Formats: sequence, structure tokens, C-alpha cells
Amino acid sequence: MRLVTFTTGERDLLGAVDGSDVLDLGALGRHEGSGSLPDSMLGLIQAGPAAWSRVGDLVDRARTRGHLSDSARPLSEVRLLAPIPRPAKNVFCLGLNYKAHLEETAALPDLPKVPVFFTKAVTSIVAPEDPILHDAEVSTRYDWEAELGVVIGLGGRRISEADALNHVFGYTCFNDVSAREVQRAHEQWFLGKSLDGTCPFGPWIVTADEIADPQALEIECRVNGVVKQHSNTSDMLFGIAPIIASLSRGLTLEPGDLIATGTPSGVGYTRRPPEYLKPGDIVEVEIEGVGLLRNPVADIRQVSSAA
Amino acid sequence: MRLVTFTTGERDLLGAVDGSDVLDLGALGRHEGSGSLPDSMLGLIQAGPAAWSRVGDLVDRARTRGHLSDSARPLSEVRLLAPIPRPAKNVFCLGLNYKAHLEETAALPDLPKVPVFFTKAVTSIVAPEDPILHDAEVSTRYDWEAELGVVIGLGGRRISEADALNHVFGYTCFNDVSAREVQRAHEQWFLGKSLDGTCPFGPWIVTADEIADPQALEIECRVNGVVKQHSNTSDMLFGIAPIIASLSRGLTLEPGDLIATGTPSGVGYTRRPPEYLKPGDIVEVEIEGVGLLRNPVADIRQVSSAA
Repeated sequence: MRLVTFTTGERDLLGAVDGSDVLDLGALGRHEGSGSLPDSMLGLIQAGPAAWSRVGDLVDRARTRGHLSDSARPLSEVRLLAPIPRPAKNVFCLGLNYKAHLEETAALPDLPKVPVFFTKAVTSIVAPEDPILHDAEVSTRYDWEAELGVVIGLGGRRISEADALNHVFGYTCFNDVSAREVQRAHEQWFLGKSLDGTCPFGPWIVTADEIADPQALEIECRVNGVVKQHSNTSDMLFGIAPIIASLSRGLTLEPGDLIATGTPSGVGYTRRPPEYLKPGDIVEVEIEGVGLLRNPVADIRQVSSAA
Repeated sequence: MRLVTFTTGERDLLGAVDGSDVLDLGALGRHEGSGSLPDSMLGLIQAGPAAWSRVGDLVDRARTRGHLSDSARPLSEVRLLAPIPRPAKNVFCLGLNYKAHLEETAALPDLPKVPVFFTKAVTSIVAPEDPILHDAEVSTRYDWEAELGVVIGLGGRRISEADALNHVFGYTCFNDVSAREVQRAHEQWFLGKSLDGTCPFGPWIVTADEIADPQALEIECRVNGVVKQHSNTSDMLFGIAPIIASLSRGLTLEPGDLIATGTPSGVGYTRRPPEYLKPGDIVEVEIEGVGLLRNPVADIRQVSSAA
């Protein structure tokens, strides 16, 4: 399933994409007499595997019978929000996790022996199609970073590598937009990675059952249609299972936790000359079997005055 | 006021410390006919200045009239939780923010020109008197870091230094317990600062009106009664106002956000020989006018088996 959070303007709803439609899972549950379903993505993930199965059954039944008119809406007519519009904690992120990106950045003398983790603030999250915010008074070096996102379904501590993928609810696309001079100036990366409007995420969560091998997915970033990053998740230094094992060795993971698994080579600041995002640009992150996340870049003052 | 979150075992309640008693603010509000008050610390902070004033008036009236028997409980008979048991995002933290600590760590060739920010996971939070968790399979180098905590009351972006202290709801004590070899191995500090049971915080929030000058407070850390850190918040490289201004330059701060403002010199790993926390130790963080935060250190396996 491809699960979305969408809004009618009044309320945020949980949906499943079916072809060119979005099924309103709340409405569908009521029609089918399936009792109340969690009404948010985070609620659904926290409700656990029995609830996930009920949603899967509902969508299957709706497909078989044909859509019910008041529980399906054209995808083109709804506004998608980030799949979890407000996560319960910062997004876990990896740095320096693609071999070719390590080479281009020359960031470390040797390959990291363990994953490099930092976080992005929840206030930085951006919905699909919404603008990445460009604030020239804060940074003139906003850079793209296409990343495969992992959504934790079952929490835990000391999760083994062998068991790790059983803890994954699904996958999504992240753009870990980074203000390079802020990232550098503050020594630790957090602030340069956490500016408002720098964490596009979505357009949906693809449930884990639909991804046969998350370590064999083409990943690409395009700016104004020009390919800037193109790689495969097979190039990760630490795959998803070792990432989950390393993170949970001493830290309890929880349902709904988000992990952005690092970016491949081809970021802007390592180019000669360096390239950065500017208002008017369109940035696309596309991951095979997962989705296409597209966001324009806009001057924060124009967005603020329009709001 | 000294505001606490305490538990009856069944419910978490919001309280105000008055002498040796805790006033149950919910019960007090009902007695005084003041209508419903937010029933959690985060709810109160988010409710804004009018709600803060109502709570202040309630406590003043209760003091004047004498306590009502069913809204006051002896502080010694309640269990305090962390003032915000589950913050809505990671704790903002500063590194290398006391001049003498910069000297002892020799971490940077020059003084930082801007604050060094990282975060601690919300899952690492520990209540006052609850154990700091020592997991020898994850780290044998758990180190203390006494820190003044700032609680944001009014959110905002681009908060000026001149206005910054008007955005502070209150102050508290943090112990930014750090697993030194984890902090180093993962390059970025996040994971070594975010292990389960490594963020004691409390015992209460002292409202900002009670602290005449937050940059003139004695701060001390004691391990088993022996002074390990002793300094004054006047030694901060970046004071609270510049911290808030720097953090909010491109990132929106929200009510209830927590900022741990960095630790003075005297941490364990810079000692000759290095000293680390071990199960059975008692760690105290005391800040003048703010409070005393005390936690034992316990082997995680003994805590788990007792739970």
C-alpha cells in the first residue's frame, strides 16, 4: 500500500493511494462496518500489525468491489501533507553513508566504522509539492540530498541485524536539504540541517511488503529536470539492517520513528563550481518502487507574505 | 513558582511546590472555581501567558488562605516526573559553551564563533531521583555534565537578543550524561548523548520571574558528594539571549522547547586519570535559585529485572 496523509482543508485524513484515487480510510472503514480505524498515520503505525492488516483488507475489498463514491477522491484534487505531518521526535539522519559520497566529500580519513547519526528538527518538515524555504539572510548555500526514508513500525531496543527489517513499517523519500555554511559554522551539523522548510518528506509511505529488497533501489535527485544524483541503495556503506541495529543498541526506537539513510554522491557543494538551490528551482527525489517527491524552492519572504 | 509534574501512580498531575508541599493545580482550580486549567506542563506552557497568570494567582490565593487539604500533598510523599515527561521534540543542547570547559577539552583550535548545537533524544529523559541507566555493553564511559536548562514559553523565529529572555518560561537543571566512546566513534555527538536513561531533568521548572539574572548562577555537579564541576553561568561563552537568537535565526522555536545550555569544566573524561560513572554512584546537579537534581546510577539489567 501507498499510505498518505491528506487534507480537506478542514481536517487531516489518512488515505491509501489506489491508481489515480485516494481512498479515505476513515470513510471506508465506516462504510465497511470495520469499526473505527486510527485517523492519523502515526496513530495507525502505533496501533500495530493487527490494525495494519485491517487497513490492507479494507483496501483489498474496496478494490474488488469498485470504489465507493464518497470514500474515493481523485489524487489530483487533494492536497497531500507529509505522511507524518508532525513526528513525535526529530528525524534520525545518517551522514556519509554512500561510498561515492564519502569520496566526493573527503570528509573522513577512513571509512566510518559505525554509522554517523544526527537529527533534523520536526519543525523543518515540508509537505510534497510545498516549497523548500530559501532564506538568504540565513543561508545562500541550500543543497539537495536525496535519501531513502525508513519508517519504524515496531519499536525496540537492541534490535538484531537479522530481525531489523521486521521492525520496518515502510519506506518513503526524504530530501535532507542542508544549509552548508550553517552546517559548517556550528561545528555539529544539527542546525544547518534543521532550518525551517528544509525537510521535504513523502509523497507517501510504501508499506514494507511492497519492497522486495530495499538495498537494490535506484535513487535519483533532479534539479529543474537535470539529474544531479543517481545511485542505488546498494551503494550504502551501512544498510538499513545495520543502521537499525546500531541506532537501537543503546536507544529505544519507537513506532513512527523516521530514519533518513544518507545521500549518494552528486550534492551541490562538491561540484566545481559549487551549485546551490535558488528560489524558482524544482527539486525531485525519486526512488524506485517508493515514489517521487517534488518540491519547488521559494523565497521565504514571498511565502510568508502569501500566507 | 516551582512547577512540577508528579504522579499518583495512576495519573500524571501538574503541581506547584509550596514549602514542603505540592499543590495539585487541577484540584486547586476546581476548588477555587477557576475553571479548567491545562492538566500538563506542556499544556500549560502552550496555553500562554494568560494561563500562566491564572496559575500564579491560584497559588497566591492558596498561600494566603492556607492550603486546602485535598489539593496539597507533602512533597516527600509524591513521585516527581521530569517536568515535561515527554517533550514534543528532541532537547536542543549546546556543546563547548563554558570557557574553562573549552580549555580542558582542547576541542577546537579557536573559540567557536557561533554556538555548537546538537540534540538529545526524547527517549533518553530521566525523572528526578530515577536512575541514570548504565549499560556496560553499550558504554563504559558514562560522564556527567551539569547544565542550566532553559524552557521556551513563547515561540518564534528570528528572535532578537534584546527580546530573547521574554521568550523564556523558566529554568531547570539538566544532566547531559554522555557516553564518551559512543560520542566519539559515531563522529557526530547525537547518539552518544541520546542513550536510554541519560537525560535527567528537573526536579522542577522555576518560572523566569524568580531568576533575576540567569547569567549569574552558581552551578555545581557532585558525584557521591564530591564536587566535580563548580562554575557560574557567567562563564558561558554564549549566554541565553545569544543562544535563543542564534537557534531561532532560521528555525522556529515552539512553546515547551528545551535548551540545555552546555556544561562547565570538570567533566570526567578530561581528568587524569579519567573518571566515569558506575552503578551505585549518586550524581547531583545543583544550580543556584533553580534547584537540585539528584539521580543514582544503576545497571540497566537490574533496573529492567526490577521493573
